[in-house]
Amino acid sequence: MKAVRLYAKWDPRADFELGLKDIEGKLTYLGSRVWRNPQIKEEDVPVPEIGDNEVLIKVKTCGICGSDVHMYQTDDDGYIFYPGLTAFPATLGHELSGIVTKAGKNAINRRTNKRFEEGEAVCAEEMAWCGHCRPCADGFPNHCENLQEIGFSIDGAFAEYIKLDAKYCWSIEELRSTYGEEKMFIAGSMVEPTCVAYNAVIERGGGIRPGDNVLILGGGPIGIGACAILKRAGASKVILSEPSPERAKLGAQMGATNVIDPLKVNTAEKVLELTGGMGVNLILEATGLPDVVWKDVEKVIWDGRAVNTMVVIVARADKKIPLTGEVFQVRRAKIAGAQGHSGHGTFPRAISAMAAGMDMTPMMTKSISLSADEVEKDLKMLQTDRKHCKVTVLPEK
Amino acid sequence: MKAVRLYAKWDPRADFELGLKDIEGKLTYLGSRVWRNPQIKEEDVPVPEIGDNEVLIKVKTCGICGSDVHMYQTDDDGYIFYPGLTAFPATLGHELSGIVTKAGKNAINRRTNKRFEEGEAVCAEEMAWCGHCRPCADGFPNHCENLQEIGFSIDGAFAEYIKLDAKYCWSIEELRSTYGEEKMFIAGSMVEPTCVAYNAVIERGGGIRPGDNVLILGGGPIGIGACAILKRAGASKVILSEPSPERAKLGAQMGATNVIDPLKVNTAEKVLELTGGMGVNLILEATGLPDVVWKDVEKVIWDGRAVNTMVVIVARADKKIPLTGEVFQVRRAKIAGAQGHSGHGTFPRAISAMAAGMDMTPMMTKSISLSADEVEKDLKMLQTDRKHCKVTVLPEK
Amino acid sequence: MKAVRLYAKWDPRADFELGLKDIEGKLTYLGSRVWRNPQIKEEDVPVPEIGDNEVLIKVKTCGICGSDVHMYQTDDDGYIFYPGLTAFPATLGHELSGIVTKAGKNAINRRTNKRFEEGEAVCAEEMAWCGHCRPCADGFPNHCENLQEIGFSIDGAFAEYIKLDAKYCWSIEELRSTYGEEKMFIAGSMVEPTCVAYNAVIERGGGIRPGDNVLILGGGPIGIGACAILKRAGASKVILSEPSPERAKLGAQMGATNVIDPLKVNTAEKVLELTGGMGVNLILEATGLPDVVWKDVEKVIWDGRAVNTMVVIVARADKKIPLTGEVFQVRRAKIAGAQGHSGHGTFPRAISAMAAGMDMTPMMTKSISLSADEVEKDLKMLQTDRKHCKVTVLPEK
Amino acid sequence: MKAVRLYAKWDPRADFELGLKDIEGKLTYLGSRVWRNPQIKEEDVPVPEIGDNEVLIKVKTCGICGSDVHMYQTDDDGYIFYPGLTAFPATLGHELSGIVTKAGKNAINRRTNKRFEEGEAVCAEEMAWCGHCRPCADGFPNHCENLQEIGFSIDGAFAEYIKLDAKYCWSIEELRSTYGEEKMFIAGSMVEPTCVAYNAVIERGGGIRPGDNVLILGGGPIGIGACAILKRAGASKVILSEPSPERAKLGAQMGATNVIDPLKVNTAEKVLELTGGMGVNLILEATGLPDVVWKDVEKVIWDGRAVNTMVVIVARADKKIPLTGEVFQVRRAKIAGAQGHSGHGTFPRAISAMAAGMDMTPMMTKSISLSADEVEKDLKMLQTDRKHCKVTVLPEK
Repeated sequence: MKAVRLYAKWDPRADFELGLKDIEGKLTYLGSRVWRNPQIKEEDVPVPEIGDNEVLIKVKTCGICGSDVHMYQTDDDGYIFYPGLTAFPATLGHELSGIVTKAGKNAINRRTNKRFEEGEAVCAEEMAWCGHCRPCADGFPNHCENLQEIGFSIDGAFAEYIKLDAKYCWSIEELRSTYGEEKMFIAGSMVEPTCVAYNAVIERGGGIRPGDNVLILGGGPIGIGACAILKRAGASKVILSEPSPERAKLGAQMGATNVIDPLKVNTAEKVLELTGGMGVNLILEATGLPDVVWKDVEKVIWDGRAVNTMVVIVARADKKIPLTGEVFQVRRAKIAGAQGHSGHGTFPRAISAMAAGMDMTPMMTKSISLSADEVEKDLKMLQTDRKHCKVTVLPEK
Repeated sequence: MKAVRLYAKWDPRADFELGLKDIEGKLTYLGSRVWRNPQIKEEDVPVPEIGDNEVLIKVKTCGICGSDVHMYQTDDDGYIFYPGLTAFPATLGHELSGIVTKAGKNAINRRTNKRFEEGEAVCAEEMAWCGHCRPCADGFPNHCENLQEIGFSIDGAFAEYIKLDAKYCWSIEELRSTYGEEKMFIAGSMVEPTCVAYNAVIERGGGIRPGDNVLILGGGPIGIGACAILKRAGASKVILSEPSPERAKLGAQMGATNVIDPLKVNTAEKVLELTGGMGVNLILEATGLPDVVWKDVEKVIWDGRAVNTMVVIVARADKKIPLTGEVFQVRRAKIAGAQGHSGHGTFPRAISAMAAGMDMTPMMTKSISLSADEVEKDLKMLQTDRKHCKVTVLPEK
Repeated sequence: MKAVRLYAKWDPRADFELGLKDIEGKLTYLGSRVWRNPQIKEEDVPVPEIGDNEVLIKVKTCGICGSDVHMYQTDDDGYIFYPGLTAFPATLGHELSGIVTKAGKNAINRRTNKRFEEGEAVCAEEMAWCGHCRPCADGFPNHCENLQEIGFSIDGAFAEYIKLDAKYCWSIEELRSTYGEEKMFIAGSMVEPTCVAYNAVIERGGGIRPGDNVLILGGGPIGIGACAILKRAGASKVILSEPSPERAKLGAQMGATNVIDPLKVNTAEKVLELTGGMGVNLILEATGLPDVVWKDVEKVIWDGRAVNTMVVIVARADKKIPLTGEVFQVRRAKIAGAQGHSGHGTFPRAISAMAAGMDMTPMMTKSISLSADEVEKDLKMLQTDRKHCKVTVLPEK
Repeated sequence: MKAVRLYAKWDPRADFELGLKDIEGKLTYLGSRVWRNPQIKEEDVPVPEIGDNEVLIKVKTCGICGSDVHMYQTDDDGYIFYPGLTAFPATLGHELSGIVTKAGKNAINRRTNKRFEEGEAVCAEEMAWCGHCRPCADGFPNHCENLQEIGFSIDGAFAEYIKLDAKYCWSIEELRSTYGEEKMFIAGSMVEPTCVAYNAVIERGGGIRPGDNVLILGGGPIGIGACAILKRAGASKVILSEPSPERAKLGAQMGATNVIDPLKVNTAEKVLELTGGMGVNLILEATGLPDVVWKDVEKVIWDGRAVNTMVVIVARADKKIPLTGEVFQVRRAKIAGAQGHSGHGTFPRAISAMAAGMDMTPMMTKSISLSADEVEKDLKMLQTDRKHCKVTVLPEK
């Protein structure tokens, strides 16, 4: 079968030390310290053999994630940008939907609590959690101590087929009547990124009550996903701060009731104006520039009359955040970090909300075929482009 | 000014004993044990004088509540149905909206944290909580130990004017741009009953997550209000069980995605069918017939695959509920009682949600003028009628 | 090795139908409908072979649970009392502690996140949760859809050795310095029942705040465990209602600040007196006679001034509970069902609390050797005895 | 009657602008920008007249708080240190206990829900919340928009008598049998500072589960109070980081299981060692040096295996905190700001816990008489002293 795979050279920086779980020449938890000169190759590989707990999925759609872009993007020394868990060569791609074509004898479909049947439409989690470490046993699989990641350290879905442990798969049959045979797989491939946003604002942020107002900083796929989810959760004002006109427009289409261009207006002042001086109940930092936006975060909280504002940090960033404790004391505010999408009933709820009308497919603004050339071109394009939101690989195209 | 007031005779049943907070001949916490032969009278009374903390409100709209009906409805011995706190004669009416025409020097408008200005459009809580007893101080004003009730033990809003402590009033100016000058007061008078539903499903029930399913038993004003709120909160399936075709229709208009006639189908089986066997995450008992519907409640929980179902009991009823502990153990379920609408940020959130598009005005199916005749006629009609949902008194009609 | 096993005859009652997950002649989810004439046998069986995820444990201590008693107790027709999941013949015993003597290559010790080492002292969960069904994936393993139970449907620990999937095992090394080499295993065998109580009052009941008062109905091992846990959680009054003088005494030793004999005083009145009329914040039903005690539950809530009382039902019972909705509405109260002990960080927290001084070992009032005779004798004795609390099998005795 | 009062000159700094709620020459929300040359005077003032909602309290004990010290402490230009709400001259003192000697007709005692009787022993909140602004109505009186503060902007309790609205008073009669006639008032004067700690760790931090570990940074009265509360709430390890040997000793006496001198050992490493690498579930920042201790906070979280750590910031500080978002994402951690002590059932629970044995009186390390000389001397001494914990004024001494 055809697969689009990423190769890179294991060439650790001078000061790199092999971590406890790293494997020399093969796997590291610190990708950007080790991997150099990434290359995208189209290969013919065998269709995977499945084990008793696994299913074989014929891939219908697989979106490109920012992480995919960062695995191929390099600094001046040729090291990849992506800082996390990686084991190359690997087939990229983790925002997938497809059809089960084979199932191991213990490969249970949670929809039925029976063995998966051929033909079942599914999507999948990206996080391969172990299920038995302390965080997993306590109910926090996003913080698994033995995590593997699909499309990073194990083969992903830029391929005709992928095999996965059934426990990472979720049926999307519920989407069929709403979206139809074709579009349901586009919708299905949006479940994973939608769940990252859902986990951030609903599970980690604690959700909102109908009538609350929210502020989303950054209109990438997670920020826009959060607009859709919070609008659906009953937010009255869903204010999106995003400078790109294309993304602002998409944000408004997907649920933002107001969009601010932070390069043109003072975000905090505008938020206070839009909310009659109340401010907001939840703020999502999804820009990756927390040091830049933090003064707005604190001004909205400090000057707004709402108490109990929850700030959720979902975008990854190295920069320190200049936190003013007094703001969070006087205004009774909180901060939560968010990571992942697994557990807590997030996947089935996101799928159900999509089946009931929360249409995420407008975020898919481009589709390409399963070819190294096209994938490579768009991985490059997305390094700078802010016009597209989500590009998707269609193996059957 | 004109006022429609209820008179009744203090004539305690033989076994009645004056309670600790009861006042001989005047006030009791057990209305149906004491008051006989209620009469509706139209009177000309002075416009109330306000104190420093109070506002005078020109009433624009005031809905008739089920409690109003029960204060006028009598049993075979002539005692009123309404079992609770009452002090007659009293001007009835508590689902009010109006315009502030005068404000005491300490009558603060929470919208501005300044003294109320003339012309501010407001609605009001019905519960006159003291603010200093143990439950109030702890944050639970719906359970105030010194509660008075507007339109029950103190004069209500079936009148041209009403005076109220400013702390029970909430600005509805936010509704103006959405509903316009006329309709905003209809919407405003719906805030109080909407908040009873909001308090039940959001505060007491803990709300839901987008993608959850819910079951509402009973399509009276509270049940239908809950449909609207839970739909807005992101419920995928909002299943309403209600036999009256008019109310079923209204429920569907207001947010129910599915309506069941419990006289024609088995409610539990239908719910399981509609949810693909999952059951629901929240159930609201709003029929007042808990002993009748409870077998459905438990069957949905027991046979449904969803764990953690929350059952909220909002309708008052004397009948014992035949609770099966095992159902709640095996399915990890909970039960909560709900009462009131005050506190917890409920009023401002309900108003904000209505300003953002949660239109409750279709529930108002009839309006009448401020006259004893019309009020009396509809208090009688509503004893049996299930076609109307909410009848409203318009003093300016 | 030696094992004490329970045999019974598969002889379904006339109206029994094989359930979906039942296996003819072997396994049923409705034990008391099927199994007849139970017999306890002492057998010599092979030491189990372990798989990659499993450990072999040399059993040091294994307590007798009420369920063990009910598996051997029969009605007039000879059917066993225990109504749940059972597959006979099976080695009984699930309240175990022991020492790891062998570990599969993937048998991870959560204490270290490395493979179990020989000599590690452990205890174990009784619930063999699958880890991948909907409730497990959502974080609720006590409600696993594919549950097996150790000592019920798979071989337990009334034996010299037991094999278990490592994911059900928890290190008790933390207990060593507090209890010493001998007593740490007694303490370790108490972890499982302690966790049933912990899950009930802390996870399901939501815990308490320091200064709250609680009422425990029933002084069996779960009720007394709850006394210890809630005292440790900062309860001011821990009131235990229990008629047996021996258990009352043990309850007082373990954390109850007041013990009531419900046969001598009116429980509700006494609770109100002891709390200065406030009532309590949490009530645990641990008698198995909910229909008998419910009037006290509701009276304490109704007459007590505390709002927000949480009632947790942990004991299993067939009888309907005559629930008065109004009590839970007016007093802002809730009811939760509790089942199991797995997940939610319960085991490691209970172990840590025991290491820090919450000594559960006084509950072990008798120890016996691993012999069919002694086990049988005490299974019979415990059918009626209320003097002993916990009897423990010591295979090395 | 005798009163110890603070006078200062209204002499705003050049750049000061009168705030919206400030009153020229009298009251400001920014004390340190306005007040100069504070003086302590002993005066003979009339015993206050009480209103209908008020009580007159004969003061038995009143502790000195760090805020009192800062109102008298000045910078090089003679401006006071205390930055907040102040209106001078004012009688200082807010950590009070005493006996009700007179009660207005509506002055309700929450213990009985009746008018206060003469002789009732009470303590009081320091925060005079309005009860009707948006945060108060929503249940968050610590964030009242119309806050006054006892001993800051209204007369306090370094006096023979104080009048207070009854709603700020809490009966301490419950302490009588535990502490006796004398000591109960010392205990009573500790309730207010204890509630600041309680509000921080229990209400804002969400409390802990029995078996959790905690880290308290800073052994002042709040930090040590938190040690006592969290120990009582079931913490296994209560680790206090505090350099002063006297306070370290007091911390250990009050509940800390381990005390670290942060000047001698690396706090984070020591915490990880003491917890077997797990880290802690709750961290309280009570040093006022968040920029100094933050690296330890993040290292404990990052290197510790516990997920879900909650960091509560209770000490006020100007310095920015260098927050690393990734730490809170990867470890599923949260931050909450804490302010105040009112509401949420905190006062009655703290009193109940103290009645049940949580003895806070050892924190009172010195008592003085009600004289300007002694108060002045100790306000100066406490500017630098770290040996004393709490100094108390006894008007009857």
